[in-house]
Amino acid sequence: MKPSPSAPSRDFAASPEAVALAAEPIVRAALLEDIGRGGDLTTESIVEPNREATARIVARAGGVIAGVSVAMLAFRLLEGRIGAAILAGDGERVEPGGVVAQIEGSARAILTAERTALNLLSHLSGIATATRTLVDIVAGTRAKIADTRKTTPGLRALERYAVACGGGTNHRFGLDDGVLIKDNHLALAGSIREAVAAARVRAGHMVKVEVEVDTVEQLQEALLEPIDAVLLDNMSPAMLAEAVRVVDGRVIVEASGGVNESNVLEVAHTGVDVISVGGLTHSAPALDLSLEMLALS
Amino acid sequence: MKPSPSAPSRDFAASPEAVALAAEPIVRAALLEDIGRGGDLTTESIVEPNREATARIVARAGGVIAGVSVAMLAFRLLEGRIGAAILAGDGERVEPGGVVAQIEGSARAILTAERTALNLLSHLSGIATATRTLVDIVAGTRAKIADTRKTTPGLRALERYAVACGGGTNHRFGLDDGVLIKDNHLALAGSIREAVAAARVRAGHMVKVEVEVDTVEQLQEALLEPIDAVLLDNMSPAMLAEAVRVVDGRVIVEASGGVNESNVLEVAHTGVDVISVGGLTHSAPALDLSLEMLALS
Amino acid sequence: MKPSPSAPSRDFAASPEAVALAAEPIVRAALLEDIGRGGDLTTESIVEPNREATARIVARAGGVIAGVSVAMLAFRLLEGRIGAAILAGDGERVEPGGVVAQIEGSARAILTAERTALNLLSHLSGIATATRTLVDIVAGTRAKIADTRKTTPGLRALERYAVACGGGTNHRFGLDDGVLIKDNHLALAGSIREAVAAARVRAGHMVKVEVEVDTVEQLQEALLEPIDAVLLDNMSPAMLAEAVRVVDGRVIVEASGGVNESNVLEVAHTGVDVISVGGLTHSAPALDLSLEMLALS
Amino acid sequence: MKPSPSAPSRDFAASPEAVALAAEPIVRAALLEDIGRGGDLTTESIVEPNREATARIVARAGGVIAGVSVAMLAFRLLEGRIGAAILAGDGERVEPGGVVAQIEGSARAILTAERTALNLLSHLSGIATATRTLVDIVAGTRAKIADTRKTTPGLRALERYAVACGGGTNHRFGLDDGVLIKDNHLALAGSIREAVAAARVRAGHMVKVEVEVDTVEQLQEALLEPIDAVLLDNMSPAMLAEAVRVVDGRVIVEASGGVNESNVLEVAHTGVDVISVGGLTHSAPALDLSLEMLALS
Amino acid sequence: MKPSPSAPSRDFAASPEAVALAAEPIVRAALLEDIGRGGDLTTESIVEPNREATARIVARAGGVIAGVSVAMLAFRLLEGRIGAAILAGDGERVEPGGVVAQIEGSARAILTAERTALNLLSHLSGIATATRTLVDIVAGTRAKIADTRKTTPGLRALERYAVACGGGTNHRFGLDDGVLIKDNHLALAGSIREAVAAARVRAGHMVKVEVEVDTVEQLQEALLEPIDAVLLDNMSPAMLAEAVRVVDGRVIVEASGGVNESNVLEVAHTGVDVISVGGLTHSAPALDLSLEMLALS
Amino acid sequence: MKPSPSAPSRDFAASPEAVALAAEPIVRAALLEDIGRGGDLTTESIVEPNREATARIVARAGGVIAGVSVAMLAFRLLEGRIGAAILAGDGERVEPGGVVAQIEGSARAILTAERTALNLLSHLSGIATATRTLVDIVAGTRAKIADTRKTTPGLRALERYAVACGGGTNHRFGLDDGVLIKDNHLALAGSIREAVAAARVRAGHMVKVEVEVDTVEQLQEALLEPIDAVLLDNMSPAMLAEAVRVVDGRVIVEASGGVNESNVLEVAHTGVDVISVGGLTHSAPALDLSLEMLALS
Repeated sequence: MKPSPSAPSRDFAASPEAVALAAEPIVRAALLEDIGRGGDLTTESIVEPNREATARIVARAGGVIAGVSVAMLAFRLLEGRIGAAILAGDGERVEPGGVVAQIEGSARAILTAERTALNLLSHLSGIATATRTLVDIVAGTRAKIADTRKTTPGLRALERYAVACGGGTNHRFGLDDGVLIKDNHLALAGSIREAVAAARVRAGHMVKVEVEVDTVEQLQEALLEPIDAVLLDNMSPAMLAEAVRVVDGRVIVEASGGVNESNVLEVAHTGVDVISVGGLTHSAPALDLSLEMLALS
Repeated sequence: MKPSPSAPSRDFAASPEAVALAAEPIVRAALLEDIGRGGDLTTESIVEPNREATARIVARAGGVIAGVSVAMLAFRLLEGRIGAAILAGDGERVEPGGVVAQIEGSARAILTAERTALNLLSHLSGIATATRTLVDIVAGTRAKIADTRKTTPGLRALERYAVACGGGTNHRFGLDDGVLIKDNHLALAGSIREAVAAARVRAGHMVKVEVEVDTVEQLQEALLEPIDAVLLDNMSPAMLAEAVRVVDGRVIVEASGGVNESNVLEVAHTGVDVISVGGLTHSAPALDLSLEMLALS
Repeated sequence: MKPSPSAPSRDFAASPEAVALAAEPIVRAALLEDIGRGGDLTTESIVEPNREATARIVARAGGVIAGVSVAMLAFRLLEGRIGAAILAGDGERVEPGGVVAQIEGSARAILTAERTALNLLSHLSGIATATRTLVDIVAGTRAKIADTRKTTPGLRALERYAVACGGGTNHRFGLDDGVLIKDNHLALAGSIREAVAAARVRAGHMVKVEVEVDTVEQLQEALLEPIDAVLLDNMSPAMLAEAVRVVDGRVIVEASGGVNESNVLEVAHTGVDVISVGGLTHSAPALDLSLEMLALS
Repeated sequence: MKPSPSAPSRDFAASPEAVALAAEPIVRAALLEDIGRGGDLTTESIVEPNREATARIVARAGGVIAGVSVAMLAFRLLEGRIGAAILAGDGERVEPGGVVAQIEGSARAILTAERTALNLLSHLSGIATATRTLVDIVAGTRAKIADTRKTTPGLRALERYAVACGGGTNHRFGLDDGVLIKDNHLALAGSIREAVAAARVRAGHMVKVEVEVDTVEQLQEALLEPIDAVLLDNMSPAMLAEAVRVVDGRVIVEASGGVNESNVLEVAHTGVDVISVGGLTHSAPALDLSLEMLALS
Repeated sequence: MKPSPSAPSRDFAASPEAVALAAEPIVRAALLEDIGRGGDLTTESIVEPNREATARIVARAGGVIAGVSVAMLAFRLLEGRIGAAILAGDGERVEPGGVVAQIEGSARAILTAERTALNLLSHLSGIATATRTLVDIVAGTRAKIADTRKTTPGLRALERYAVACGGGTNHRFGLDDGVLIKDNHLALAGSIREAVAAARVRAGHMVKVEVEVDTVEQLQEALLEPIDAVLLDNMSPAMLAEAVRVVDGRVIVEASGGVNESNVLEVAHTGVDVISVGGLTHSAPALDLSLEMLALS
Repeated sequence: MKPSPSAPSRDFAASPEAVALAAEPIVRAALLEDIGRGGDLTTESIVEPNREATARIVARAGGVIAGVSVAMLAFRLLEGRIGAAILAGDGERVEPGGVVAQIEGSARAILTAERTALNLLSHLSGIATATRTLVDIVAGTRAKIADTRKTTPGLRALERYAVACGGGTNHRFGLDDGVLIKDNHLALAGSIREAVAAARVRAGHMVKVEVEVDTVEQLQEALLEPIDAVLLDNMSPAMLAEAVRVVDGRVIVEASGGVNESNVLEVAHTGVDVISVGGLTHSAPALDLSLEMLALS
């Protein structure tokens, strides 16, 4: 299953060089973190340098794949000639027992990179799977499922990509590509009016401004200013529906706070445009994957 | 609550320089990942440079804290004079609503570093909390709860530290500081005897050798060789108990595979020395923490 | 003279740590580029290690200062105790012969860092000066003067800051924080409609979409789509005025192409919101500054 | 037109590996500065991954090219298979409308790297063009046109190369590969004699020693010492001519200070060996270049 | 001659990627250290870019080779197409005048990388040669010759590899992959008992614990604790023999301190398992090697 | 004993910042190489975080010290408040048993950094000692003892500094700050005349040109060209004396090849200006130093 139209993925695999610029430093660092200064003592002592092998990455649980070409990079950074056939690409669903990829080449490189590759792929696919679950639940509503900045340090670009693979959409990348005025900012600024005015001066004409509000009164105050979006924080479905009515299509409406599988549909039915969910990136369990050796030539 | 005797933590906070060498590059990279090239547009436009503030990190759920000094580093890297009082140190339990730390200083720095600090602290405390749950369950048995190499890329050192904060013990760091001969190695080596012999030649006299076995027959074969530990993979409690009897104290016995809250005590009662659990680091949900502004001076 | 309300500067000097994260790597690399592997042979052989001195950075030509605290960092990275009194801060105008800063401390560090400090300060002040010239010319119109991505490799953040010091505003930082659909994109997309639709799916709700148009027909086509801004490329003042009428305030209007001191006012009078000028960053001559030793203690 | 015999260029294009060591880190950093953490939103959403295209880099103004292979590297770092035909190599002159290079390959990579490539090439070609203008003016005299350390931070190696492409010669790279005793050094050393003696002890037998002098008296004092060159700072043509007579070929004579197109020939006619010009690197306007898409396959 | 069974080498040459991860950063930094910012002035001015040449690395003295593929990497990083035929591989002995490798390709790259390649190869081969000398002396005894942490900063991984090429074995890599309790630790811990107990808690079940002792009394005290090895520091042969008797095979016995060619056999005859020698890595003279140009095509 | 007038040392300790720029990256990398990813298991488990101690670095053999402030940096990078009293500074001689420095502060930091500090200090002091031996032998002649590019990869700057501490002088740093035309260059250039002419064009007016010659005929040929120095390679003392006569003071005369303690005086008596000795940096044995704990508070 390809990613839905609402969440096309940036294809890291489009060219090896695009992968190199974006994901390679992370994969390289992860390999070095595992291999350390002394090398893979077990594999190097037991496996002949020229031994070739074929292995498969197999799903032990069902889910949505993300990061398979990133995982392949772990093998290729150790041995450039390793061949990889991807059977379940990013955004595709696998069933338990399904084969994600088949790898052929140096047995040493396969064994040494195995854990690094699986750690990356399991983590990203866990995020894609959690995202897809919510996306499927709200299918048919206008709501998009979005990520937040509650990501794992060092992995935000990859985790956002995984959200896209699961059919989600991406919020701002960080503090520098969008203005989001939260309660603490408002407390320091004095008023929504002053805060928005200051942000408009600083931010440049290509930057959007969003304001977080807790009440309908705040929302009405915010709508008097030149803003692009509102973030409705921790509101009940009833309040959300009221807020959507008040906004009446003038700005983008985002809901956030405590959303999960059991309440996401109710939130979506309030008519909000975007539902952002921190748990997609900070608490999604890893997808259970393993590497199995096939033929040993 | 201090870490139990079975899991003393390496104190990252012992000196600022020790933190600098170990954790600072991770925190710095995480800050830059969030701040980007353009700076915190919202805070810099709304908050005066000289504005001071006081904030608290508050637990929204109960758990065990890990990484609080690492989180404080996020603030201090932005503004060296920020003061921090740690109320719940690494290894200590917090109840819902409990205050983890109080921070005073530049309002800008507090707001800009907030998400980076919380992302690190929530992630590590989630791991410590999951570990402590298992450690408490097996209290009174001889079993230690250990981590695995199934860690998040780039964060292994911090995640291992979090496991220690939760009362767990650490397995080998990576591929270079211990030999662990797994099924795929054995398939390539021909026999346990050959594999262990090769590893002994390569590894140096300070390196331990562990062999993964699936059956009691394999276990008996392994015990004929000069090994230090056995990893019993995915065995039932009954098989584990039998294996413990066969080993009879000659080597360390580690159990692994599918261990969770509901079955860990049964595994511990088999008499194994170590129970290693990948889920501690790859699937523990983040601990829910928030930053609340107090006084605005 | 402080930066005008339309161009508040991000204050790099707010805290040493903010400077460290943003500008320090650039200054450090620039110092190493000049000092090399062998050290400052001249200064180290001639000047005693403990010799103290006082020096002034003096403007040989009039202009607007940008980067003075960045320049001071060059001295402080060599010798932390160097004192600096800034007499003309970022955004302020200096007349020929005016003193920008006075520096006191290690004579060696002052001499060794002199060229690095001046190179940075002259370059950034040259940009601020060129920007201020255009900003002053269009004062009283609605037009803001903006930078482009035509910056010097490695210095974009600092150069954008210099533009702000000169009273300009910043366009998108790079390719990832705004969509700007240009003629080549359109040729590949088939139509403005298809291009905007594709961008809207990919970009997330916090990203603005701008379309470059060459003709009023294209402009009208673009205005049918959900866009935030139009870039009028290389249009005559008459065409610009017509375009402003067509847009009628629905989206932001940006003019670009061949703008300079002699024609910028005419462009501004067409009623556009933003005038972007590549020459601010790729061709502004350096501001002539020198370091003069005062007392030698 | 190849670089003249007086300024052979170091050929960065001689081997891909030589480029990798010298220029690649700069190009890579420039690409990342533009692409950021989120990718080229516009291109990735609009252009198909497998779309191929052909483009030309065209000069909008006449000038001398420098850095064309460096610019090609920007494309190749994104997509290794991009083909490039260089029509105007480094050191060659292009007329307005002339084609510098033709590029074929991934449309995505061409669009994403376009600005980075043009920024580098325009900047370096601007320097080469400004250099060539002065070199051509002084053709027939003994004077060489040299650069200074007044370079753009981070780009010194490339800018010196551009000067060579324009027919100029290179001064010392930095503070560690030549001794240049300036007025401030002299003030601290007490006398030229003491300064030169100290430098001779420190510097090793392969390092040249140059002394900056403001008057003929200082010049005569300097010529009593074991020096290799004198720098005549901001002298009038008449003083320069007198100084050349005094030196009488014993050491190299360099003139510096306020040299430009209108006075460089007069300076050259005084008989000096080297004329160094800071403006070559700190104030040369960029050469106007653009990338034009040709066939879209 | 291949490395003896007691010292199989980790083959850096197994795949280019394995070399890239382990040795490439060192070789790249060494090249840049020599080439600097300005390039190889001599070679680039004298040798044509397209000139091809053939050269040989020749031993001027006899010894054991280590690092030949690392040395080849120096050439290949400058010019990927350089061909290299290795005539004396790592671990093999060369006689005076023997050819280690033949290199064909770009004359420029060969000349520019010559010194970097030779510096690495001479240094590592010097270590391998010194190791092999001791290993051959103790052949027939049970003693292995081991390295220590007395290595050259930045080169530990390569130097340990050189020791293995010389037939030696590797001690722990560093402070994190083995516990070695020395006299200073004991003074701070109070007793061997307390020190070992503390280390056992901290270290994890895969870490070995060794205790340094100076006397037989200390040895007996240490043997009461759960340790894996003892380090007999600076003991006479008679004391060593007594210690071996006391240990009686229960733990590994390592001797260290002042061992050299003249006394190593006597030490080995005491029956110790491991003899560690700091001089292998901190004082082995370089093996004299030179690069000779053959045909100039 | 301070360095002699012929070899003043660049004082790395002049300011902490100068050390930071030059030596800190090396020391930091060396610390991380030893501490690894897991920390100092022994010290962290046995020594209390707040334990203070006093230690001395003691010479076990006589020699000349180099790098003591670099070594102190190893301690301070772990714990900024460590106090150090330097009793034998760089360039000073210590007798066996002499104290080089006394260190007070965190016992953990002292023990963890001990080996890194000693490895650096022993290595550099070994070089200084070997240099001083030759310098003392040739005292009274005109000959200076110089280093070569035969240095340990990554340590050239520090090793050159150690040579200066031993009273030696420094040759060119690398390939970019001096032209040295060797036999292989000549073979490729055709003639000394052509080689020197090409180098003169390329190198800029601040670069010296030296030519290596094997015979008096070659020497006479070289002296016809505009060169600054000649390198007499592997000549006998008689040939050297003859060469000195031929040169007659017109250029600097350097002798190289096989120089050691037993023949250096004879070489010096030939009247050469510089004697360069590769063995100073590639084969000097480390100076034997140890760290002794004093008071344990």
